Amino acid sequence: MQAMKVMKQFMEPQSVAIIGVSRYTGEGAFNILENLLGYGYQGRIHPINPSVNEILGLKTYSRISKIADDIDLAVIATPRALVPRLVKECADSNIKAIEIVAQGFADAIDDEGKQLQKEIDNIAKASQVRILGPNTFGTANAFVNFSSTFIKIKMKKQPIGIICQTGAFFVGFSELAFIGKGLDLANACDVNFSDGLKYFENDSETKVIALHIEGMQDTKAFTSISRDIARKKPILALKTGQNEQAAKAVQSHTGSLAGRKEIWQAALKQSGIIQVSDLEELIDLTKTFSVLPLMKKSKIGVATISGALGVMTIDASQNFDIWIDTLSPKTQKLLDMMAPSWLKVSNPLDIWPIMIESQPITKLLIDGLEALLADHELGAVFFIGAAFDEKWGTDLCQLLTELAAAHQDKPLICSIYGPSAGQAINEMQDAGKVVGFPTPERAIRALARLNEYSRLRSGL
Amino acid sequence: MQAMKVMKQFMEPQSVAIIGVSRYTGEGAFNILENLLGYGYQGRIHPINPSVNEILGLKTYSRISKIADDIDLAVIATPRALVPRLVKECADSNIKAIEIVAQGFADAIDDEGKQLQKEIDNIAKASQVRILGPNTFGTANAFVNFSSTFIKIKMKKQPIGIICQTGAFFVGFSELAFIGKGLDLANACDVNFSDGLKYFENDSETKVIALHIEGMQDTKAFTSISRDIARKKPILALKTGQNEQAAKAVQSHTGSLAGRKEIWQAALKQSGIIQVSDLEELIDLTKTFSVLPLMKKSKIGVATISGALGVMTIDASQNFDIWIDTLSPKTQKLLDMMAPSWLKVSNPLDIWPIMIESQPITKLLIDGLEALLADHELGAVFFIGAAFDEKWGTDLCQLLTELAAAHQDKPLICSIYGPSAGQAINEMQDAGKVVGFPTPERAIRALARLNEYSRLRSGL
Repeated sequence: MQAMKVMKQFMEPQSVAIIGVSRYTGEGAFNILENLLGYGYQGRIHPINPSVNEILGLKTYSRISKIADDIDLAVIATPRALVPRLVKECADSNIKAIEIVAQGFADAIDDEGKQLQKEIDNIAKASQVRILGPNTFGTANAFVNFSSTFIKIKMKKQPIGIICQTGAFFVGFSELAFIGKGLDLANACDVNFSDGLKYFENDSETKVIALHIEGMQDTKAFTSISRDIARKKPILALKTGQNEQAAKAVQSHTGSLAGRKEIWQAALKQSGIIQVSDLEELIDLTKTFSVLPLMKKSKIGVATISGALGVMTIDASQNFDIWIDTLSPKTQKLLDMMAPSWLKVSNPLDIWPIMIESQPITKLLIDGLEALLADHELGAVFFIGAAFDEKWGTDLCQLLTELAAAHQDKPLICSIYGPSAGQAINEMQDAGKVVGFPTPERAIRALARLNEYSRLRSGL
Repeated sequence: MQAMKVMKQFMEPQSVAIIGVSRYTGEGAFNILENLLGYGYQGRIHPINPSVNEILGLKTYSRISKIADDIDLAVIATPRALVPRLVKECADSNIKAIEIVAQGFADAIDDEGKQLQKEIDNIAKASQVRILGPNTFGTANAFVNFSSTFIKIKMKKQPIGIICQTGAFFVGFSELAFIGKGLDLANACDVNFSDGLKYFENDSETKVIALHIEGMQDTKAFTSISRDIARKKPILALKTGQNEQAAKAVQSHTGSLAGRKEIWQAALKQSGIIQVSDLEELIDLTKTFSVLPLMKKSKIGVATISGALGVMTIDASQNFDIWIDTLSPKTQKLLDMMAPSWLKVSNPLDIWPIMIESQPITKLLIDGLEALLADHELGAVFFIGAAFDEKWGTDLCQLLTELAAAHQDKPLICSIYGPSAGQAINEMQDAGKVVGFPTPERAIRALARLNEYSRLRSGL
């Protein structure tokens, strides 16, 4: 399959030519070559700069045609005016995959930008090259330590494939600091969402696909491909540019057509895609779907050390449509035996009065959570705890990770408060068994979407 | 004013008796005295324990009547069965302010709990004592290093007064790790929201009041007092227990009546209170209102280093009803001069192509933000930037803090992405001039509410 071969050249190149490598390095230089060397990429790298013979210890070439090697991927990082000629040279040198970093094409307001974009489009049509961008951060792949980013990013072998129209997803966010695999379509003059989806569909290292969509051309192909994939892997999507003013901003950011909100909602639903409401939800669900197994039942069990946060959890469960109901008689009996006589054992379970019946207080906490995890009527368990300080956070992370490892088939999700909550949540993410959130509402929202997708997959 | 005097005894006690101090200390002991000594409280402390003569270097007493000192506040931290007798002894010793830590009263399901609650209520009615709780974390006041919490908390002199029905607000959250002043009403058998509001109304150290409400008795007094205060200080409220199932959980958490969602919405609005939708919004607005000045105009200026996050900002501005519109001709001209020719200077302003026109790249970033901050038509400035690593985060924090300090009358808010975003946002919070959020949607939501309150205050 030729199409797939070229997508692999973008995502897993064995040799790269970087056209327009600056001799400036260090902070503020945004040197793609310097970054790439820092990631530990093992492929062959050929920098092109007509003014010097060597940059960062690598031999440079004056032009693409001088390189004897087979080039999987060419990255063009020059001012925009030079781009059409360079694309032509790449095509003439039989390079099939090209990334264009420069801005100022369909995203620009001047005639020159439009003209340049047209020239590129014509060259692409006349040859067999595929073009990613313009205005792109390029691609990233933690599994082969490769990225063509001009800002040094942090990569981690996590099973998340991102197709986006901004480098921000490569740079990361405070709660999703790393990228696994990514494809920044940016202006998407050629390589598009369907191409990216096809790559991730067949990629065994990718468990969840996250999309950031500003606009697209061929929605028909997109819908059809998505529907096929959604039966096998969850696809999450944040569609931005939801009204007229935003659509105008999309035009000047990536030159795309944004389209009407309602039409997009229907199209994404029809495609089996889980549409999120904002960036935070995309981050939350990406974390959740990449770590947790699917839910076998819709009812969830909740244990909380804070009665008040238990109340917030019930509020959220109604807002996000997930089912918290009475526990099975067996589980109820087990928990009754641990609880003080005055405590009403219910779901959510106020576990603090149970915990403090024993020393160390984690003993009955573990027993209580075990009782919920072992209950076959429950599709997932949600725990609300606190990281009073760093040690509490680390201990809690270890305790929950061990519980989750012993119950691999049941999602364990938690909400952590307290001053060291952020650290505890990060530690859980690193351990990769439990997903943590700073508020109960966000955890419940994520669990509700996991449940939706689980039902979809099981065909119920 | 007698009522105010007693509230000061709860919040700023000069002498405290702690009844039921355990001799166990260290982790897992939850020793109120040990915590209090750790905070650096300068008042007089009298622990009561009939079994030993001394705990942590302090002389203990066998009972409250043996203490010769005047006691501002008594904290009762014994099992529930002992509480009525101890409350009586405090009343007989002329102590006016009592906190009851024990659980198992109106929050319990058994008859004993109900009976005990009744006994306490009767004693309170027959004497002039005021009771906080039962089931309370007590009070906290960073300005006098005082708290009666049984879990060691982190306090900071921040101008935030919290009235809540759970100790979770004292323990803190990952994004609001410290408490300034707090009053945990818990079961609220006596001291209630109105009492707390009256205290914070007149407290010069409190700039914003945050409420966490499960339920309350005297809503009429509450509404009237809130309306008076809201003209002077913002009051934020999270009302939980929004449906039948949640209302039942409220009953077993604090024994309160939760009440219907729509009635609460109307009542809070009528009271001039800003109602938030969830815990995260309460945290976000508490940060925002405690740090930023009010907005003089409704239009905001936005500068972003990510076009995509600018698009998300416009989406959010429509969802949360705040005004992003064309810049004034003067500002437009200023920015045009800095921008490359192909860039459309608009609002939101894509500032990355401007920044990279100069070295160091922060030079034109500062100039661009200065242009927006100096524009009298703009009521606030929102910046979207990235913390690519720790140094970027720290530099960005310093840069924004300096800009905010030079424009004290105009709110500067930001959204930071990138792997070190969390750290950068925390540093900004410590510096106390700018408010930072991890996503543009949350920043815009906070700014929209700040604008609402600013309009309310100015009577427009």
